[in-house]
Amino acid sequence: MGRHNLEYPKNVHNTVKRYNHQADYSLRTIHTIINTSPILHVSFNPPSSPFPVILPLIGQMGSFSHPSADLSSPLDIYLHGYVSSRIMNLSRSSTGSEPPGLPVCVAASKVDGIVLTLTPNSHNYNYRSAVLFGYASLVEDVEEKLYAMELITNSVVPDRWRNSRVPPNAAEMSSTQILRVKIESGSAKVREGVPTDERGDLEDDAVTSRVWTGVVPMYEVLGDPVPGPYNRIEGIPEHVSEWRERVNGEGREYALEAAEKDAPVPGKKRVGV
Amino acid sequence: MGRHNLEYPKNVHNTVKRYNHQADYSLRTIHTIINTSPILHVSFNPPSSPFPVILPLIGQMGSFSHPSADLSSPLDIYLHGYVSSRIMNLSRSSTGSEPPGLPVCVAASKVDGIVLTLTPNSHNYNYRSAVLFGYASLVEDVEEKLYAMELITNSVVPDRWRNSRVPPNAAEMSSTQILRVKIESGSAKVREGVPTDERGDLEDDAVTSRVWTGVVPMYEVLGDPVPGPYNRIEGIPEHVSEWRERVNGEGREYALEAAEKDAPVPGKKRVGV
Repeated sequence: MGRHNLEYPKNVHNTVKRYNHQADYSLRTIHTIINTSPILHVSFNPPSSPFPVILPLIGQMGSFSHPSADLSSPLDIYLHGYVSSRIMNLSRSSTGSEPPGLPVCVAASKVDGIVLTLTPNSHNYNYRSAVLFGYASLVEDVEEKLYAMELITNSVVPDRWRNSRVPPNAAEMSSTQILRVKIESGSAKVREGVPTDERGDLEDDAVTSRVWTGVVPMYEVLGDPVPGPYNRIEGIPEHVSEWRERVNGEGREYALEAAEKDAPVPGKKRVGV
Repeated sequence: MGRHNLEYPKNVHNTVKRYNHQADYSLRTIHTIINTSPILHVSFNPPSSPFPVILPLIGQMGSFSHPSADLSSPLDIYLHGYVSSRIMNLSRSSTGSEPPGLPVCVAASKVDGIVLTLTPNSHNYNYRSAVLFGYASLVEDVEEKLYAMELITNSVVPDRWRNSRVPPNAAEMSSTQILRVKIESGSAKVREGVPTDERGDLEDDAVTSRVWTGVVPMYEVLGDPVPGPYNRIEGIPEHVSEWRERVNGEGREYALEAAEKDAPVPGKKRVGV
């Protein structure tokens, strides 16, 4: 069995109950959704508050000990933050605890289309969503911190790191903090395909002759780059234009394909994204 | 002072510490970000788990007692879910507690552009993000439940409710559950504008002559509607085409304007979105 079949074990915390034919536990699926999301939502519990807190952060799956590991391998998630933020302080103070680190949930979701059906109840999205559960602690090692900073920068725009002013200076290194989350479990849900409705509505001429059904694809677009006030470079550098072209092509293509696929069949296991 | 100036009171849970010149506590700003987000991330604490859980849900700000209240008014948030999901069961069992309901955090984030600067450390997004903290309980009243179902359906596609098969039948009413979150506090962060860098880099010719700086606008697009396999309606209905036109125009326009605005100045309070 190839590594691409590795799955997170199911337990009470990560098992998907609703529409579980759309559930996916493969590392490749989950890690791909996390890595292609421009924003991650990270939840933690601050002390002395009844409410969990959600922070929008950027991050990326990675492995400092095996940097060439692919997305179907066991990986950590590295999150980028500011040194004095609450989640950083809590992670610092949890470092000596057992298990070490702050319990967090990391979520990423992407809407690929609006699925318009006969009745509001069966309306849906084509979407990809993933959650990971793990323990966050501060990266103290300078080499690992630089590895993660480069990983995260290049996840926003490929190859941006060496196309900007690096290495970070002392002030930048001390104001930036990186969290490493050791993953305990995770799951994904993916919906793609045409609308589905209940038989009662499908057989009701008065309904089908009145209600439009179909999918409106939804995708993110990177527009024409707008040079800043102190930019001195003519034209758009290759690493920026290539990235735009790829993101714009892939996003549109995925959403259009998802809109035309056969409807998901309950009980039939989907193939990962 | 008009109602548009209403703000959530600052406290230890919602006060923004990092880049606090980008913080906004006005109800209008926060509620607008929530209402224009196709997916909300909702966090809660299941019993006997160390990890908070994040669920992607759809939802909308509303007021059943004052349905015409605008976005600068105190509002609840209604969330749509499945009757037997864990968050619904926990909210049901929390209904008799004091304060009543399950403590939740609701977050919405939208990236409007990638801000490419001279050094990775000053890279940024133009973005809008909001969080709300409150207590979730089940909507038991049938009229309020129908109000919320229509509100949420029409938030996905304006006017979709009456353009589909309504009212919901008994099976649909019993399988759908609506959560009402009474809001305790909230905050928003908004970043818009051109890149900013540190003086040291701006004055370094070797850096400014090599590194492209600017903003790549990012916005969501609704593609051409794809009729489903059992659709019998010719053409695209007006409520769908008008919605597409508006969303596509507004998203692009916002991202382009954000890319060209003056950089945010620390200490200067921004005007809400």
